[in-house]
Amino acid sequence: MFDGTAYHGFQRQKNGITVQECLEKAIDKITGESVIVTGCGRTDAGVHAKGYVANFYSRTKIPVSKLPLAINANLNEDIRVVKAKKVPPDFNARKSAIKKTYVYKIYNAPVSDVFLRNYAWFYPAYLDFEKMKRAAAHFLGEHDFSAFMAAGSPVKSTVRTITGLGVAKKGSLIEIKITANGFLYNMARIIAGTLVYCGNGKIDPDSIPDIIKSGQRVKAGVTAPPEGLTLEKVYY
Amino acid sequence: MFDGTAYHGFQRQKNGITVQECLEKAIDKITGESVIVTGCGRTDAGVHAKGYVANFYSRTKIPVSKLPLAINANLNEDIRVVKAKKVPPDFNARKSAIKKTYVYKIYNAPVSDVFLRNYAWFYPAYLDFEKMKRAAAHFLGEHDFSAFMAAGSPVKSTVRTITGLGVAKKGSLIEIKITANGFLYNMARIIAGTLVYCGNGKIDPDSIPDIIKSGQRVKAGVTAPPEGLTLEKVYY
Repeated sequence: MFDGTAYHGFQRQKNGITVQECLEKAIDKITGESVIVTGCGRTDAGVHAKGYVANFYSRTKIPVSKLPLAINANLNEDIRVVKAKKVPPDFNARKSAIKKTYVYKIYNAPVSDVFLRNYAWFYPAYLDFEKMKRAAAHFLGEHDFSAFMAAGSPVKSTVRTITGLGVAKKGSLIEIKITANGFLYNMARIIAGTLVYCGNGKIDPDSIPDIIKSGQRVKAGVTAPPEGLTLEKVYY
Repeated sequence: MFDGTAYHGFQRQKNGITVQECLEKAIDKITGESVIVTGCGRTDAGVHAKGYVANFYSRTKIPVSKLPLAINANLNEDIRVVKAKKVPPDFNARKSAIKKTYVYKIYNAPVSDVFLRNYAWFYPAYLDFEKMKRAAAHFLGEHDFSAFMAAGSPVKSTVRTITGLGVAKKGSLIEIKITANGFLYNMARIIAGTLVYCGNGKIDPDSIPDIIKSGQRVKAGVTAPPEGLTLEKVYY
């Protein structure tokens, strides 16, 4: 679990501190080894995770049940290991995942909520919630999601299956919950941004099938800002 | 509304930045005046507020309905004016208040929640929720709450009336909701700490009436840390 506000995403990189390097340093410190942590996916800077899964190989004598407490003692308060367990040698947090759920939050009110400033997209203009719901239904199923991928992302296949796309409203908070067998680069944020464009009238909800078919990024909505996104759960 | 994490409480002071001075600077900037903001109460460093109320006198020509947006444009993201309205000259946010509600949050789980690190007291040890509820009932009514006040606070009377004290549990989160006609210095936090001491067995829930009668601060529980406390609502 991590609050991504202060990090340049999960994956180690040159230009900023990442969750991966904090985890590796903490594990190195308690095991005396030099581990490589494999995460279940990159996340963008500012994106959060509740049910993030990562694996590493270690010969440590520390019982696996004691690992969370020991690792957490060497982490900042915004990263926490909630659980640890032994996995077979062929387990790979990224490759073994069969499904992931992301939640995207939008705070739709005239004045922002200070407690959500890092955890939701503050969107003060009018959003037609019914249009967002209608648009969401069109995403379900197996599609080529090229139109919902950041330009220039090298992947073998752009076909993914969305098994769940719910849009719910609690007061001024709109929550978009997306479950898919995989996500292209920025896909969750572009879908969220497209649903907002359906809500504000810039995109017709019933044009979603055509936008998907077009494969053109420019036809979809804006890439919603990272702070609204949380990786909720990874399924194996 | 403010996230108190970065502030030394509401009230202006020499040793750190406060919400009051941020508000005053923002209002001065848009009105060209030099206003004094009267808050509904001090809050300790790190304590939050949702329904905080404050008043100030101004001759500004800016329509009152435009004030929140104008003031907010000159505030950090962790302070927001949600609403503004004209009040009679004798209105005083502190003195005119007849009742206040505070909520104290405790995160009671083996591993802390990164998203609650600034908004709840992380308490990993066992708490008997039923004992906390039983203790809470003893606080209701009009009492001399000297035992639940930080030592050395100069006040005319230490008698207050608690009209509501609910303890609720949602998953690992325990929420204590206290409504009273007034709060002594640290009273909400000492009551929260005392309820935790009832939950962990250090204080017998049925000894609360005796502790109240004793008037001795040492007999009550610890002062719960500030990050768990939020001023929820002020009644006029």
